[in-house]
Amino acid sequence: MDHNDWVQQKLRELSLSLGFRYTPLEEIENRLTRTRAGMEKQEMEGLLVIQKMDLYYLSGSAQDGILFVPLAGKPLLMIKRELERARGESPIQDVVPLKSNREIPSLIQAHRGRVPRVLGLELDVLPARDYFKFQGFFPGTQFTDASSILRETRKIKSLFEIGLMRKAGEIGRKVYQEAKEILKEGMTEIEFGGLLEAVAKKYGHEGLLRVRSLNYEAYTWHVLSGLTGGIVSQSDSPMGGLGLSPAFPVGASLKTMKAQEPILVDFGTCFHGYQADETRMFSIGKMEQKFICAYNACREIHDAVLEDTRPGADCEALFLKTLRLAEKLGYKNSYLGPPGLQTRFIGHGIGLELNELPFLAQGQSYPLEEGMTFAVEPKIVFPGEGSVGIENTVVVTKDGYEVLTPTGQEIFQV
Amino acid sequence: MDHNDWVQQKLRELSLSLGFRYTPLEEIENRLTRTRAGMEKQEMEGLLVIQKMDLYYLSGSAQDGILFVPLAGKPLLMIKRELERARGESPIQDVVPLKSNREIPSLIQAHRGRVPRVLGLELDVLPARDYFKFQGFFPGTQFTDASSILRETRKIKSLFEIGLMRKAGEIGRKVYQEAKEILKEGMTEIEFGGLLEAVAKKYGHEGLLRVRSLNYEAYTWHVLSGLTGGIVSQSDSPMGGLGLSPAFPVGASLKTMKAQEPILVDFGTCFHGYQADETRMFSIGKMEQKFICAYNACREIHDAVLEDTRPGADCEALFLKTLRLAEKLGYKNSYLGPPGLQTRFIGHGIGLELNELPFLAQGQSYPLEEGMTFAVEPKIVFPGEGSVGIENTVVVTKDGYEVLTPTGQEIFQV
Repeated sequence: MDHNDWVQQKLRELSLSLGFRYTPLEEIENRLTRTRAGMEKQEMEGLLVIQKMDLYYLSGSAQDGILFVPLAGKPLLMIKRELERARGESPIQDVVPLKSNREIPSLIQAHRGRVPRVLGLELDVLPARDYFKFQGFFPGTQFTDASSILRETRKIKSLFEIGLMRKAGEIGRKVYQEAKEILKEGMTEIEFGGLLEAVAKKYGHEGLLRVRSLNYEAYTWHVLSGLTGGIVSQSDSPMGGLGLSPAFPVGASLKTMKAQEPILVDFGTCFHGYQADETRMFSIGKMEQKFICAYNACREIHDAVLEDTRPGADCEALFLKTLRLAEKLGYKNSYLGPPGLQTRFIGHGIGLELNELPFLAQGQSYPLEEGMTFAVEPKIVFPGEGSVGIENTVVVTKDGYEVLTPTGQEIFQV
Repeated sequence: MDHNDWVQQKLRELSLSLGFRYTPLEEIENRLTRTRAGMEKQEMEGLLVIQKMDLYYLSGSAQDGILFVPLAGKPLLMIKRELERARGESPIQDVVPLKSNREIPSLIQAHRGRVPRVLGLELDVLPARDYFKFQGFFPGTQFTDASSILRETRKIKSLFEIGLMRKAGEIGRKVYQEAKEILKEGMTEIEFGGLLEAVAKKYGHEGLLRVRSLNYEAYTWHVLSGLTGGIVSQSDSPMGGLGLSPAFPVGASLKTMKAQEPILVDFGTCFHGYQADETRMFSIGKMEQKFICAYNACREIHDAVLEDTRPGADCEALFLKTLRLAEKLGYKNSYLGPPGLQTRFIGHGIGLELNELPFLAQGQSYPLEEGMTFAVEPKIVFPGEGSVGIENTVVVTKDGYEVLTPTGQEIFQV
C-alpha cells in the first residue's frame, strides 16, 4: 500500500480514536496575530520558525520543517519529513515539501512573491553554524533576534492550552494516587521513579520534559530520599539529588529508600506537549518531626504566594515575600537550598517548556497577567539529612488563580 | 551541616557504593592529547568546551560549567554549579568557581597568563546569541569552529568507554529478557514501552538518550505494533510510529497490541552517559509469515554488514552492499521505509550521543577504524500493515567487531 494514501485516508481517524487533539485554526490565527504584533514593533518583515516547540505552537505540527510567517499574508509551512502527516496535523493552508534549508529563499519567493529584507530567527536556540548558513542562503537579508517575541507570545496561554495542561495535571494526580501502592521499603529511588513514569505513560504522558536550553535537561524521575535530598547538583534547583553517574548527576539514584526518611517526588507530566509540574512528599512510616514541620512551612509559603496570585501582582515581590516568610518561620538558611547554594526563584513559567515566562524570582519585576501559567515550588534543604517541598502548577485567572495539579497536599505516608 | 563539608567528606564514598565510575586521569589526558592534535591542525590556541557531553568527555564532570583547554598547558575547569561536586568528579587539577560567562576571559588570564587570540567553540550546537555574547566578552579574540575536532576525537572509543557501552548493552539484555514476561495482549504500546523503561531504570539506565541536534529528540519507548509500524514521521527513521499527539508524533502510542501483529521494540539504554541501541521483534502468538520472512531478510542484511566490519571497510560501501542485498531478497520497495520515504543509512555512530561518527550511509565514504562504535539497523516497512527489523550496537576491533548488545536474536513470541 502507498504510504501517502494510507496517511491521507486512515491516519487522522486512527489518531482521533486514540485521543489526539489537533490545534484548531482559530487558535493558530490568534497566535499568529499576536506574534505579528511583536514582529511589527521590531520592524521584521518575516519570521522563520525553526525550533520544534515554536513550530508546533505556530503551526500545530511538530514534523521536521520550518514555518515562514510574513508580517502580512499567509504563513508557509515547509516540511522535510513527513509532509503528509504535517498536512493532516496543521490547519495552515500552504504546506509544501522542503528538501534542504538552501531552498527556503526560493520557496518563499515562489509562494509569497518576495524574500523579506528583515527576517527574525530564534537566536536564543539556533546554533551559530546554522545562523551562518542562513546568512549564506539569504544574501540580501538582515537577520534579527525573534526569541523574545516568541517567548512573549507564548507566555499567555489560551483556554485550549490550559485545557491540555489541566489534562497533564490530571495524569499527575493518577500517578501520585498509584504511587502510594507502589512505594515499598527497600526499593531504590530510581526503581520507584521508573515505575511512576510507567504509570504516567500508561495515561498518555509524553515522557520528555522540554527546556529551552543547550545544556539544561529535564526528567521526570526526581525522587530523592533522606540524604540524597540534601545534595545540590548542576541543576538550578534547591536539591539536585545524587543521580546515577557523573554523566547524569541529578535525580533518582540507586540508593535504597528507608523507613522514616523524607521522600521527595518532583514529577513532571506532559500531554500534547503541555507540561504540569508538581512535588509531593512520601514516607514509609512517619517521617521525623523536623521534616514534617519544614513541610508545613513549605505549604504556608506556597499558600502565601497563591494568596497574592492575580493579574497585576509583581513577580519579584512574590519571591521576596517568600524570603521574608521563610526567615520568619525559621528557615532562612535552608530555604531553597543550603547557604551559598540557594536558588533565587520560587516559581517558573511552564507550558511547552519548563523555563517559560514568568519567573517569580529576584530581578524579575513585572506583573502577572491573566493566562500566565507557572509552577510554585518552595523547598527546604538539610545537607546530609534530606529535603522537603511542595509544588503545584497554576494558571492566573481574571481575579486569582486555578490550580492545574489537583493532587491532595498531605504527606503520603505508606 | 555544611553542604560543602558533607560533599567533600561523604559524597564520593556514597557514590562509589552505588556503582559510580569516575573517568580516570589517564583517560582524560589521552582525550586531551587527541583533541589538541586537532586544535593544532586548525591553528587554535585554545578551546572552550561548553556542551554538556563534550564537557563530560573532556573533564569527567557534567556539572554546569565550561572547560578551557589551552593548546599547551593545563586545562582549567570553571564551574557555576556545583563546584564541590565537580572537584570530586573531575581528575582535572584546576577547578575554579565561575559566576557568569563574562568572567571567563579574566579567569583564563589569571590562571593561564593570557587570553588566546584564536579560540575554538562548538559552533554546531552553541546558540547564535551565546556566540555573539562570547564575541563581546573576548574583544581581541578570533573564534573558530571546533565541532569537527570534538566529533573526530570522540569517534574512537577507549577500552574504558567500550566497557561502559558493554554495561549499557547488558542492561538492554535484561530489559528484553523481562519484556517477554511483561507483554500481554490488550496492553497499549506506550504501557509496554513505559514498563520496559522502568525495568531498564531499575538496572541503572539513565533515561535520557542524547542526540547532538536542536530538534532531534531521542526516546526509549519506540514500540510499534502492526499498522503503527508502517507510519513514517519526522524522525530520520524508516518507521516513526504514531506517537501520542501532534506534539510527540513518534514512538509508542495508545494503540492496543493484538495477537499476530509484528511488534517492533527499538530500545536504547544509557549507562554513565554511554548508550547502546538495539531492536528486537515480539509477537503475541505467531506473526504472519510475511513478517517472519522480512525479519529473516533483516537478519541476513545485518549479518552481511558485520561480515565486512573491520578497520578499513568503507562506510558507504557497507550501506550500498545492503541496498543490493535487500533488492536481491525482494525488498527493494520496503527496505528502510516506503518508496520515496526511505532513509539513507544502515548504521549510525553511537556513544555519548546517538548521532556520532561514523555513518554507514550514502555519501559517507571513509574507512571504519578500530574503536569506532555504531548501531546497525536494517528495517523493512509495509505501510498500513507493520514493520520488522533488527538492530545491534557493535565496536570495531583490530580485525573484526564485537557485539555490545548480547540479547538473543530470535523473534520473541509470547
